[in-house]
Amino acid sequence: MRVATIRTDDGLRAVRVDGAELVVLPYADVRQLVASGEDWAQRAAGEDGARLDLADADFAPVTPMPEKVICVGLNYGSHAAEASLALPEHPVLFAKYGRSLIGANDDLAIPAASQQVDWEVELGVVIGRPARNVSEADAEAYVAGYTIVNDVSMRDWQLRTSQFLSGKTFEASTPVGPFLVTPDEVDHARSLRMELSVDGEVRQAASTAEIHFSVPQIISYISTIITLMPGDLIATGTPAGVGHCADPPSYLTPGRTLSCTIEGLGAQTNRCVAAAHDVLQAV
Amino acid sequence: MRVATIRTDDGLRAVRVDGAELVVLPYADVRQLVASGEDWAQRAAGEDGARLDLADADFAPVTPMPEKVICVGLNYGSHAAEASLALPEHPVLFAKYGRSLIGANDDLAIPAASQQVDWEVELGVVIGRPARNVSEADAEAYVAGYTIVNDVSMRDWQLRTSQFLSGKTFEASTPVGPFLVTPDEVDHARSLRMELSVDGEVRQAASTAEIHFSVPQIISYISTIITLMPGDLIATGTPAGVGHCADPPSYLTPGRTLSCTIEGLGAQTNRCVAAAHDVLQAV
Repeated sequence: MRVATIRTDDGLRAVRVDGAELVVLPYADVRQLVASGEDWAQRAAGEDGARLDLADADFAPVTPMPEKVICVGLNYGSHAAEASLALPEHPVLFAKYGRSLIGANDDLAIPAASQQVDWEVELGVVIGRPARNVSEADAEAYVAGYTIVNDVSMRDWQLRTSQFLSGKTFEASTPVGPFLVTPDEVDHARSLRMELSVDGEVRQAASTAEIHFSVPQIISYISTIITLMPGDLIATGTPAGVGHCADPPSYLTPGRTLSCTIEGLGAQTNRCVAAAHDVLQAV
Repeated sequence: MRVATIRTDDGLRAVRVDGAELVVLPYADVRQLVASGEDWAQRAAGEDGARLDLADADFAPVTPMPEKVICVGLNYGSHAAEASLALPEHPVLFAKYGRSLIGANDDLAIPAASQQVDWEVELGVVIGRPARNVSEADAEAYVAGYTIVNDVSMRDWQLRTSQFLSGKTFEASTPVGPFLVTPDEVDHARSLRMELSVDGEVRQAASTAEIHFSVPQIISYISTIITLMPGDLIATGTPAGVGHCADPPSYLTPGRTLSCTIEGLGAQTNRCVAAAHDVLQAV
């Protein structure tokens, strides 16, 4: 089953994909859907409701404003190698704030403050039920589904101090979606092709099978620290091919177009535009 | 004015301190109060409601589950020196998740997973209205008030990878409060004595005047990255005297008692207890 969060005239709505149509579910978004009880998938599969054309969908982030967005750094050997870093002994965790997330096909605002906006296609994991001190063996039972995350990174801000956060959490910079795909459809994402292109040129091409710390290892590890909650999003790391490590380096600028796909999870397309940075937000 | 979030039999409530009493305000917590409109302070000052004894207050985190908790690392020269690090050229930002926050006098759960639980008294800033691309000159107008944060840190987890998050966001580990004190009462916290004791022994003693990047600089900087929202919490860094840098090192263990004070902002007392880590959370 595939579900999504879409924007409608009445605000956000959770929907189920049914062929070329979307069935509107009685939840505002997928975060609320998966938080509605452990049988959410059975209920969502059985719901009938208003129908919309999938082709017209305006996707919001699959889980808007999750309690936590947790990213795993240096989790593919090929990316660690291109960055001249060793694979870590423990998962390298850092955060994004929910306000950084955008929909799968939203424009990507390139902030005037950064000259090094880069891409990172990643497998995203959405948590389905509270997970605390969970073993690796049990961890997959806590997954609601999988999605695509483009962990867009402002490298000049990411690397100006020891801590990545500043360059990882720019406003409206991280496409997530379009779908949450349930684990049964993709064998828990153990071996899916992932690819990212810029202006049609393939820059990242790998398989989720190359992951260093597995999804169950990551969930178990995080759950030792803090309770994972329904709707929480984990971005599990990117393979080789980021712009910052290319020769010459390549960065996103207004006018370029990003495309991300992960086998079975759908595709994202994002047009890069200049951020309206000179305008203060009305308060 | 001092406001707080307290736990009652009916759940969380925002309250105003009135001498030895608390006046119950028509908001569930201080986050909702400050998000209710720019005139929140005038309205809160004028409200009358049920009265409770301050002495009986069970404080929740001043801003429970804020959209963002943003911490500034290495922001006092004395702490950078004890850690043998230079003061940074840019604010070192890292995150905590809201689930890490506890009330000012709550027990502090020492997780079995960490043998290096440490303390960090810090000035906390609570944001009062949306702040995006704000200048340093204007930044103080976006502050709702000030509070105390003890940025409790699991050093073995903080330092096992390059990224601090893992050691900074353990469940229920970060006392915040007891009060939000409005800027007029403390001259925007420009020069307040701060002190932290363990079992009655003073370990940190400094002034907020020693801060490296000022509160306005920090707000302006973060607002270049992302919109600060009402109720967001910024922990502005700790002075010298953390346990990890002591000779010999000193860590928190069950049975020890922490006390934090910042002049004009009140005090925190936290008893260290063993976390119930062998029990999986019921789901």
